[in-house]
Order: sequence, then C-alpha cells, then structure tokens
Amino acid sequence: MLLAPAFVDLANRNVDWKIFALTAAVTLFVGVSTILSTHSPGTLKLNYRQAYLVIVLGWIFVSFFGAIPFLGTGIGITDSVFESMSGITTTGSTVLTDLDSLPPGLLLWRAILQWIGGIGIIAIAVLIMPFLHVGGMQLFKIESSDPFQDKVAPMLKTLRFLAEVYVFLTGACALIYYVLGMSGLDAITHAMSTLSTGGFSTHDASFGYFKDLRLHWAAIFFMIAGAIPFLLYVKATLGNVRALFTDQQVRGFLIFLAIISLAMALWLMEQRDIGAIEALTLTTFNITSVVTTTGFASDDYTAWGPGAVAVFLVLMFVGGCSGSTTGAIKIYRFQVIIIYIRGYLKRLYSPNRVVPLKYNGHILSNDVPLSVLAFLSVFVATIALFTIILGVLGLDIVTAYSASVTAITNVGPGMGTIIGPAGNFEALPDTAKWVLIVAMLAGRLEVLVLLVTFDPDFWRI
Amino acid sequence: MLLAPAFVDLANRNVDWKIFALTAAVTLFVGVSTILSTHSPGTLKLNYRQAYLVIVLGWIFVSFFGAIPFLGTGIGITDSVFESMSGITTTGSTVLTDLDSLPPGLLLWRAILQWIGGIGIIAIAVLIMPFLHVGGMQLFKIESSDPFQDKVAPMLKTLRFLAEVYVFLTGACALIYYVLGMSGLDAITHAMSTLSTGGFSTHDASFGYFKDLRLHWAAIFFMIAGAIPFLLYVKATLGNVRALFTDQQVRGFLIFLAIISLAMALWLMEQRDIGAIEALTLTTFNITSVVTTTGFASDDYTAWGPGAVAVFLVLMFVGGCSGSTTGAIKIYRFQVIIIYIRGYLKRLYSPNRVVPLKYNGHILSNDVPLSVLAFLSVFVATIALFTIILGVLGLDIVTAYSASVTAITNVGPGMGTIIGPAGNFEALPDTAKWVLIVAMLAGRLEVLVLLVTFDPDFWRI
Repeated sequence: MLLAPAFVDLANRNVDWKIFALTAAVTLFVGVSTILSTHSPGTLKLNYRQAYLVIVLGWIFVSFFGAIPFLGTGIGITDSVFESMSGITTTGSTVLTDLDSLPPGLLLWRAILQWIGGIGIIAIAVLIMPFLHVGGMQLFKIESSDPFQDKVAPMLKTLRFLAEVYVFLTGACALIYYVLGMSGLDAITHAMSTLSTGGFSTHDASFGYFKDLRLHWAAIFFMIAGAIPFLLYVKATLGNVRALFTDQQVRGFLIFLAIISLAMALWLMEQRDIGAIEALTLTTFNITSVVTTTGFASDDYTAWGPGAVAVFLVLMFVGGCSGSTTGAIKIYRFQVIIIYIRGYLKRLYSPNRVVPLKYNGHILSNDVPLSVLAFLSVFVATIALFTIILGVLGLDIVTAYSASVTAITNVGPGMGTIIGPAGNFEALPDTAKWVLIVAMLAGRLEVLVLLVTFDPDFWRI
Repeated sequence: MLLAPAFVDLANRNVDWKIFALTAAVTLFVGVSTILSTHSPGTLKLNYRQAYLVIVLGWIFVSFFGAIPFLGTGIGITDSVFESMSGITTTGSTVLTDLDSLPPGLLLWRAILQWIGGIGIIAIAVLIMPFLHVGGMQLFKIESSDPFQDKVAPMLKTLRFLAEVYVFLTGACALIYYVLGMSGLDAITHAMSTLSTGGFSTHDASFGYFKDLRLHWAAIFFMIAGAIPFLLYVKATLGNVRALFTDQQVRGFLIFLAIISLAMALWLMEQRDIGAIEALTLTTFNITSVVTTTGFASDDYTAWGPGAVAVFLVLMFVGGCSGSTTGAIKIYRFQVIIIYIRGYLKRLYSPNRVVPLKYNGHILSNDVPLSVLAFLSVFVATIALFTIILGVLGLDIVTAYSASVTAITNVGPGMGTIIGPAGNFEALPDTAKWVLIVAMLAGRLEVLVLLVTFDPDFWRI
C-alpha cells in the first residue's frame, strides 16, 4: 500500500517518494521477519485472548507504521501518530493545515490509511466480534463460519466477498466523483474517505470545496453505502437482493436519516433565505456525514442557529449499522434497547404480561441486555473520563467534551471554535493529542475489546 | 404545613400571611371534598397502575398547590410553578432574586416544600418503587411489607419509623446550625434544605453567606445523612447499628466522596494560595453538595480552574444512596454495573467461566441488568432530548446541557454564566422554564415512573 503514494510522488517528481519507499522497506522487513520467526506448520487457530490481542496490537502497530510517512513533513511524532491513528480508525480528525498544498503522495496515504481501517473493521465486526459477544454483536453471528470452531475456510470465503464488495463500491464512487468533475486524485482519495466513513479531505474546506450539488448527493449515497451491514451486500451478490431492503436495521437507519434531514431542512429554511433544494442538500449531507461518523463538512453546521450544536452533539452518538465502517453506538443497539424498554415498561404496570421480543426476525437471547448495558456504560464512562482529563489539561468544556465524543465515536470534527467543523486539532496541546489517540483507538474497538486487555486476569495463564 | 409560614408572617406583621391562609383553605377544601367523594369502606389496596398514577399525580398536584403562595410576590404563574416544582422535587434551582429581602414566611415555605418532597420520595423509594421493579430498585425490597399483597400494616409501621427519623435528623441539624450561629429562621430553613438534599437557601450567596467553617462541616455531615438509605436508620433504631457501617452502598458512597474531595483539595491548593483546611472544606462541601444532589454552593466552583466544570458536570450524575432524598443515578447502580461489567469482561475472553455475582450479600437476580439498562437509557435519552429542546429555544450549549442535567438529576445549579452556582434561572425564557419543570418531575420520579403513563397501553382497561 505504501508503494502507491511512493509512485504518485515519484511521478510528480516529489522527493517524498523516498520516505514511502523507506517505510515500505521497514514494514516489509518487520513483517517478513515476524512471519519467519513465528511460522509453524498446521492450521491457524486462535483462542479468545489471542483474538483480542491480534485486534488491539494490529491497530496499534498499523497506526505506528502508518505514521512514519508523516514524519517527513516535519510535524513531529505526536502529530504523525495522531494523523495516522485518526486515519486507521476512520475518525478523520486532522492536525494538518493547508491541505491543498500538501504533496499528492501524502494526501493519498491519508486516504489509504482510512481505507485499510475501513475494511479492517468490517472484517473484524463481521467475522470475529459476534463470536466474542462484544456489546450485543452476538446478534450478528454467521453460524457457518465460527473462527473459534475450525470453520476457517467459510470465514476466508466471506472475507474475500467482503473485500470484493468494498473494492467495487470504492471504485464506483471514485468513477462517479471523477465523472462529476473531481480531479483524479480528489476522486480516488475522497472515494476512499467516503466508503470507509473516514472523513479526511484533500482540502481545508473539506467537501465544501466542491460546489456541484450532484457531488454532494453522490457522497451522501456512498456514505450511506459505507454505513450498511456489508454482509447484506454479500448476500445480495449471492442472489438475495431483497435482504438489503427488508433488513430492519437498514430501514430504521434510512428512515431516521430522512426524518432528521427533512426536519432540519425545513428549520434551516426558516433561519436563512435559501431554497428547498439547497437546504435539503446541506442538511442531508452534514447529517449523513455525522451520523455515519464520516465527518466531512460542507458547511459550518454549528453556526446554523440555536440548537444546531445540541442536535449535532446528539447525532454524533448515533452511528450507522453493524458490520459497516461506522463507529459510535450504532442503529441496532438503539433498536434493541427500544424493543427491550417497550417490553419492560409494559411489565412495570402489568408484571405478569409476556412480551415476546424479536429483532430482525430473530428472538432476542437473554444475554443481550447485559452486553448492551456493559457497552453503553463503558462507552459513556470513557467519554466522561476523557472529558475530565482534557478539561484538566486546560481545554474549555465544549472543546473537551466534543473532542472526547468525536474521538470515541470516530466522527472527526468536534464543536466550538477550535476543533469545530471549520477548525482543526493542530492547536491542542500534545498531551491532549495523545489522550485522543487512545480515545480513537478505544472507540474503534468498541471500547470493550481494548478494556479486556486491562483486566489483570486477562494476562494470567 | 401552610399554616406555619402563615403564623410566621403574621408574627412579623407581614400581609403575606393571607395568601398562606387562603391556600390552606383551598387545599383543605379540595382535600376534604376529594376524600368525601371517593371514600369507600374497606381496606386500601392499590393495583400497579393506580400506584403509578398516585405517585405522578401526587407530585403534580402538590407542586401546583404549593405554587399558589408564590403568586403573591407577583412573579407570575411560570415562575411560581417552577419554584414550587423545584422545591417539591428537592432540586433547589431558583428563579427568585434578592432572597435576603423576601418575607420570612415565603422563605420558610420554600424550605417546607423541599422537606415534604424529601420525605415523600423516601417513602416511595423505600415502600413502593422496589415492588414496581423500577430501574433496579427491586434490589431493595422489604419482603415483610409488600403494598400490593395486603401487607399494609407493616408498611405503615415502617413509614412511621422513616418519618420519625427524618424529623429527628432535621431537628438535630437545625439545633446544631442554631448553636453554631445561624438565626432561628436560617437554622430551620437550612436544616430542611439539608436533610431533603434540596438546596434552597435564604441568601443569594447560598451557603457561602455563612463564614464559620464549622457550619460548613455540619452541613456536610447532614447532607451525607440525607443521602444514606433511610431504612438503615430504621434498622439502627431497632438495634442493628452495625448495618449503617457495613452496608456496601454506604461504604462505597463515603469512600468515593473522600477520595474525590481529597484529590480536588490537593489540586485546589496548587491552583490557589490557600491553606489545607480551607481547601478541604471548600472541596468537601461543594462536592458533597453536588454528589448528594443538594445544590448548596459555598463558592463558584466552576471558576476553580481548568477541568473543574468537567469534573462537576460528571459529579452531577452520581447521586447518593437508594431510599434517600437524593436524585441522579445513585451509588448502587454504579456498583451493580461495575459488578456486572467485571463478570462480563472476564466472560468475554473465557466464556465458560462462572462468575458468581453478589451485591451487599444478596445474589443479583437476572432481571437487574435489563432494569438498569432501561433506566440508564431513558435517563440519558431524556437529557439529550431536553438539551436539544432548550438549545432550539435559544440557550447556548453549556446552559442547555447543564440545565437539562441539573433538572433531571435534581441537583439545582447548572453551569455557565447564566445558571451556574453564582447565577439564577430567572433569566431563562418561560418555555424553557416549563421544559425544566417537566424535567425536574421526570428526574424525581426516576423518569420511568413518569414514562409508563405515556404508554397508550397503560390507559387501556
């Protein structure tokens, strides 16, 4: 992957190609020596603890190696790791300014980092996390491919399908962006940013740089495509196209997006003197961007008037569907919680009532409420903890809170004048950046996956 | 209760006594006619739906009748109902300014409202809510007195004990305040405010008006006393004094307060040039006040330096113990969640492990996670909803969010320049005040008790 930006920089006669080639050599060396020193004949079989370690260490190592090319710009280790972790976790918060003048290789590398992170999280969310029962994800087990039960062959087959869909959608998105007027580099980098719901742009004005509204709607379409359960695409390519449209999570997600975008468009038309189409494009684009945890901005939506900050702060928590590239709480957890609470409320006043609980056609098992409770509690507690730490480091409360939220939900922009959609993370102190690096990693790994490795018992043999 | 302020105003030759006498006459008339028109021979027996309605309507009616005396000051219906609801829910947010010059009868009435609200919530939290399985409160069932199983006699006996303890503690607090230098009226009103963890003061400077640090420590002691499970006092008077000191919830609560107060005192000494005792008094007082959801302020703690706002915003969510006068999430829910999450984390990496879960010596039943999940989700969703509404009404994000939190947790002061500990709720628009009136009621009734009445099924026969 590092050779792509190396070639682009070489073709553009930019000396930056050297650092990409160097990093490629380093990672090749480390990778090959690791394989040689640990390779043993026989089938690959992980146990649970190893699965957690592979996931956590995988993300940490890739983000550190991915940071090396940024060192070439002279921004220092903290900023380099921040930018790399932001990419690989598909957060999209940036510490780089004057993006428009950066060498094309580096811009491509930022996009590639997100793109790797996107397919990485899809693979893990579809193939591994459901079997780990992480935060309610057991709802999405594929019974035919349990990685802990020697069912590796069907698992690898599913993985190939997922990757093919991902590549196809990214290619389609890039082509459409290009046809609608983006430059070749912009089309490829923004397509990678869109499908991975990452949010890095090659322009300081983010997606607002592009004035053609058709581009905005193309981005809306592909951000949504990146936020849909990727397993449904696999099912669709295998012939079951209906699954895409009958899935309860997808329907809930689309209906939610439509209602909020419409309501805010009407409200925006009251606040400003703009037409219906412009208003609907503005709201749908930015709401879809925040809800899918992409983080593109086509406008400074925090300036839309009273309440806009509150609405977007709440929307940051929503997220897309399970098994997609999105972060945050995700639609299915909201749907499952609502189903449980409805039943619970009815039993509060008529305790003997039997309320059958089903989600997406499946009966909800008894261990789901505890999984979701654990996820939500740890998620909220982590946000509170990071808010306090950032506050003590000197950030004002709006910056501290929204930075903590945007990092853990992997959205990208925060709120307030510093890190808002019109701002940048560059100005934060270095310690705050390291705190956010941990927060982005924790958020990407559904917090729980990182947290188990902090349990002393985890390390006992 | 209305006659007390009437007599005080009469003794002080203040014409306000008339409105209290009038309100007393009105409530007496309404009360007696209601009794006469609905009285039927036989035992009192509620079903579940009636229990919810009694609780919800009880709080609404008392707050509306309690608002009548405020109309005499000419502040209008919105402010009167706000002040009354703030009192009866033991929130302690005020819309009245220049408190020091208000007639003594009205100051006493504000204190009495909180005091009634305090014993009201204790009675319901100890005797009714555990049997309704509201938000995990089933952990605190008294098996001998189930109000839905004709065990009314032991229930009424427990109620008498609870009331006696409440009166005794309030009297002791008032006496100590008086001995330490408060005026008679200040001692009585502040004692009522302290034990009910309400937070209304008779001075604009709140508890900061009193300079004697011994008064602050007396208040700390009695705020904590108001935040302890009142059933433990009943057990103690019946001979089991050890119960008070071995209870897991009480220990967790006291240890939490001690650690946070000490840590912040050390930090405050770094920030300011003050002695250890002054620092510890400042932090212990204000932290205890916020954690017990009292809301007294002895200083503008939001100005303590970076991070103070974040820390106090998080502390607002904590709350005291179950079956006390405090609001918010409460210690036992945190403890139970931590116990569950610990077990859950271990099962994430070794799924076949059996982790026995116990709290306070009792085995945790299977329905607790769902109850706690329902409570937390609804609690957080309500805060988000009210934040958005207040934001759309034009409040800035810090004011909107902290107003929503402080109302639902029944703490009292918010954050920011308007409604912070040095501010006042008077300046908010009327619609915002009505939103907060609903929020205070929802928070006082653990949100769920109010929410069930919104279920259409609840009203079907």
